[in-house]
Amino acid sequence: MTGILFGVGLGPGSPDLITLRASRLIRNCRVLVFPQPEGGSSFARGIAQDLIPQDIVEIPVVIPMQEDLFPVHAVYDNAASRISGHLDAGEDVIVLCQGDPLFYGSFMYIHERLAHAYRVEIVPGVSSLTACAAVAGRPLCSRSGSLHILPATMGRSELISHIGSNHSCAIVKVGRHLPKIRSILGELGRATGSILVIHASMPTERMHPLESAPDNPPYFSTILVSAPDASE
Amino acid sequence: MTGILFGVGLGPGSPDLITLRASRLIRNCRVLVFPQPEGGSSFARGIAQDLIPQDIVEIPVVIPMQEDLFPVHAVYDNAASRISGHLDAGEDVIVLCQGDPLFYGSFMYIHERLAHAYRVEIVPGVSSLTACAAVAGRPLCSRSGSLHILPATMGRSELISHIGSNHSCAIVKVGRHLPKIRSILGELGRATGSILVIHASMPTERMHPLESAPDNPPYFSTILVSAPDASE
Repeated sequence: MTGILFGVGLGPGSPDLITLRASRLIRNCRVLVFPQPEGGSSFARGIAQDLIPQDIVEIPVVIPMQEDLFPVHAVYDNAASRISGHLDAGEDVIVLCQGDPLFYGSFMYIHERLAHAYRVEIVPGVSSLTACAAVAGRPLCSRSGSLHILPATMGRSELISHIGSNHSCAIVKVGRHLPKIRSILGELGRATGSILVIHASMPTERMHPLESAPDNPPYFSTILVSAPDASE
Repeated sequence: MTGILFGVGLGPGSPDLITLRASRLIRNCRVLVFPQPEGGSSFARGIAQDLIPQDIVEIPVVIPMQEDLFPVHAVYDNAASRISGHLDAGEDVIVLCQGDPLFYGSFMYIHERLAHAYRVEIVPGVSSLTACAAVAGRPLCSRSGSLHILPATMGRSELISHIGSNHSCAIVKVGRHLPKIRSILGELGRATGSILVIHASMPTERMHPLESAPDNPPYFSTILVSAPDASE
């Protein structure tokens, strides 16, 4: 019997936004995998740290700072190889994922390497998106409205066509792209009322009206743009 | 001191997808509010039932079947009035919300009536959307891709313009609209590979390729449409 690969969502950052299922799985795990930036500590492991047992196998997937020197696909190939060794030995493996494993998550790179050969179970988590809406205290979308979720890395013309005039948008991974987004929303007449949320649910959580937001917020920042008729 | 109004997300249906924070709040609550269909039982209360203490005040918000006979706004006016009585008496009030309180949730109707006068705390929950992706075992969105979330109730031409050709979509609240959606996705060349997920995370959970899905799935069904380049 091979082990099961679990992709476990941890929510947006606050340890008590972990689900009961994820908590139980982590407290009983024997092999734990998590992403870790080169030279830094793992954000995902930090969310879960109070639940992690002693004396287990921990496998950090170290993401290189300079991808041209050591390509990310090799990092995931190596991680998949180590993980499959444990699965073949009949051990379950827990992969920690900040937010939700399948919402802009790096779990997909492990999943696509192993899902054909092993049983995989995915534990959904609270996404940063709904955590941002909770901070802002306004609906992400409601009734018959739609929501477009857009990464701030998109090009200007593509963003303009996705944002449009009459539906709600959430622009994720804002970081250094804030001036571009603010300029686009200004042109579209949708800057007023838009909100920047930084590090939702974490001790460093902050919220700013877009018009007075700092120009260079962290990568984990989101801009919420309400539909003109969002109150309906 | 007035009480705090808590809007508490319960996740998509499985009781162990409740967060640790929501679980703690419910186990300690004294006044509990939940939506309930007229003549039926409350889905939200059912998710949380093992956590609900004995001998507390329970306030079902009974949603009428025929809105023309008894308008929903009057239902929420009455609920807000009862809730504010408890808040004024210094009691915290927990409003249970299936999924996330601000993602197509009815909590907004209570929020908009009381947020100006009371302290409100929102506890985000796992949305049905990421639970559907977990069932389907595929990313909702990844890397530089965008995601459009669309209610199936939208008109045909509006749906066509939102779905477009090259980004991921999730079409929620499918129910009786399935034939319309299947026809639109067929015309756009995007039916193949699309998946219908019914009741994600619940015992009645099912998944179908769209092309062989039943014509009249439950209201709580979602169609996931992957971007053509979703594997990148």
